[in-house]
Amino acid sequence: MRAGHPDGSLFPLATWRRLLTRSLRGGADYADPAGLEALRSAVARSAGLSRSVRASADDVIVTNGAQQGLDLVGRVLVEPGSVVAVEEPGYPPARLAFTALGARVVPVPVDGSGLVVEALPRQARLVYVTPSHQYPLGVPMSLPRRAALLDWAQRHGAAVVEDDYDSEFRYSERPLEPLQSLDRAGRVVYVGSFAKTLLPALRLGFLVAPASLRPALVAAKRLTDWHAEPAAQAALADFIDEGLLRRHVRTVTRVYATRHDLVTTAARGVLADRFTLVPSSAGLHVTLLAAPGLDVPGVVTRLRDAGVAVERLAGFYAAGGSTGEPPDGLVIGYGMITAADLPVALDLLDRASRPTG
Amino acid sequence: MRAGHPDGSLFPLATWRRLLTRSLRGGADYADPAGLEALRSAVARSAGLSRSVRASADDVIVTNGAQQGLDLVGRVLVEPGSVVAVEEPGYPPARLAFTALGARVVPVPVDGSGLVVEALPRQARLVYVTPSHQYPLGVPMSLPRRAALLDWAQRHGAAVVEDDYDSEFRYSERPLEPLQSLDRAGRVVYVGSFAKTLLPALRLGFLVAPASLRPALVAAKRLTDWHAEPAAQAALADFIDEGLLRRHVRTVTRVYATRHDLVTTAARGVLADRFTLVPSSAGLHVTLLAAPGLDVPGVVTRLRDAGVAVERLAGFYAAGGSTGEPPDGLVIGYGMITAADLPVALDLLDRASRPTG
Repeated sequence: MRAGHPDGSLFPLATWRRLLTRSLRGGADYADPAGLEALRSAVARSAGLSRSVRASADDVIVTNGAQQGLDLVGRVLVEPGSVVAVEEPGYPPARLAFTALGARVVPVPVDGSGLVVEALPRQARLVYVTPSHQYPLGVPMSLPRRAALLDWAQRHGAAVVEDDYDSEFRYSERPLEPLQSLDRAGRVVYVGSFAKTLLPALRLGFLVAPASLRPALVAAKRLTDWHAEPAAQAALADFIDEGLLRRHVRTVTRVYATRHDLVTTAARGVLADRFTLVPSSAGLHVTLLAAPGLDVPGVVTRLRDAGVAVERLAGFYAAGGSTGEPPDGLVIGYGMITAADLPVALDLLDRASRPTG
Repeated sequence: MRAGHPDGSLFPLATWRRLLTRSLRGGADYADPAGLEALRSAVARSAGLSRSVRASADDVIVTNGAQQGLDLVGRVLVEPGSVVAVEEPGYPPARLAFTALGARVVPVPVDGSGLVVEALPRQARLVYVTPSHQYPLGVPMSLPRRAALLDWAQRHGAAVVEDDYDSEFRYSERPLEPLQSLDRAGRVVYVGSFAKTLLPALRLGFLVAPASLRPALVAAKRLTDWHAEPAAQAALADFIDEGLLRRHVRTVTRVYATRHDLVTTAARGVLADRFTLVPSSAGLHVTLLAAPGLDVPGVVTRLRDAGVAVERLAGFYAAGGSTGEPPDGLVIGYGMITAADLPVALDLLDRASRPTG
């Protein structure tokens, strides 16, 4: 039940093989660092339809997954000592990427409406957020909070990195507008990925960046590794253009919805005396806050001994970053466990967290 | 006749397609940032046989081409203000990559034996060299010069980046030992690539790094973009293990040798009154030094107007880096022009460089 991993067995392997084979070209030389034109326009259209992102092909930069998107943004905007605000709890690889570039990463708390904007340090040059489905809590950032964040960014001359890592999988209401499309001041860089909708191994993601940052981001991409592999880019462009991505996301969302239901039903039922479910209607994991006094490390160890990997919420907090003890709990991923196995794992979780004696 | 580009039409497309298709796996999750074990051991064996590199699988880190290799080394070793010594003339993307990471890049002259070691600035933390086939001059670094460089690096606590970008194509004598295998002090990072032996578009390269640097390089790779695409890595491992790379390099070396002959014969013959060939017996380009007074920009323009792209040697010098006027000339690549077309292009070069009137 580890978080952040999709179900690789759902990947449409035969189709991908066919498209990739068709896209392989012998004559291919060094290519455009920004990415294949065909893929950039497919991504712009697709992110517009599925996520209301407002972009044309020129706004898109193809990356080797979201991680490279974060790294490129960091390379362009972070100087040694720059303050970067990251949600607390938050996505550790983002924190590490900015730290590696010399940033002073400052954790900023998240409440039931998302990032607490008034807690942002005024020197922050970059604010990293996951508004669709906060990582790891799962709460969406409310619309007023989104407006406040954009306003803050504009007043302080800061950039906002909107990491939309798994919001394609939605189980109920229509999602809120992304920061990217609410932004009127060119402050938001949108980070997208095909790791969750297709396969992490593909290493394909993208940035949608405001015009002011694009030349620097493309130059950084070129110096970093020149460009992404063109055959995979062409195959992905075809996959999107032929409507296969949309269909695939629809199919796997049904699969994940069943799993999401199983976990949330258990959390609201048999586990409710020990855990509080953080409401969330998207993505590949949910977070359960532990009741005071519950021995979370013990639960994790007992589950691991029973063969079930699960992560502590405490692991997503920056060490020493916040005042007082952070709330603890469990982050339950359902990308790598089937609906057939989930009841067993949830039953083990129930038993591992019961008061002894 | 642009330099640095292999002939994409020689790429064994059908074979690669077969191997890649076989390697595609649906279940693939996030993978080892250092690279697939199978590829790392294939690279270690192959670089040992073809280039006398002394490495085991553990010494190898798979990268997205040589450019990412340079970037990772820079990320680990360069701090803002660090002095990085780069050959003059040299490879512009290396200079740019280190500069982008905050380095102060200092150009160090190259003579007929390679980098002039006594001209190295003593504060240099990193020295970037292309000893097999200096880019762009083409001269190999002599054995005494190699020993002097390694000695210098050890005395000054500097690292040496050995970029072995196209040395697989050799047209005469056995190559000298690479710095990597002469190094006894763990000072050398060897940068390899499959861009020239296979295809730039594949974006596959590797580092062979001393033990002291490996953990930091792997961590940098993970933060940069996690890992290279596993199916392509597996396909390349098979390609090497089945002896196909060796065979392919042998085949294309014959093709490039014919082209190399045509260019060097013209340089030593009809062009000899206007150009001096820099002796070179490897790679995909040669450099012609222009006789004093020859209007090199005019030659380049006239050739371009006739449909032949060729690069000026002057473009490979760091702007304002050296004292006095750098020597000028032409860098003639024969990766993208066939033996059938070369005589026409060389004839155009002859005409474009003849004294007018």
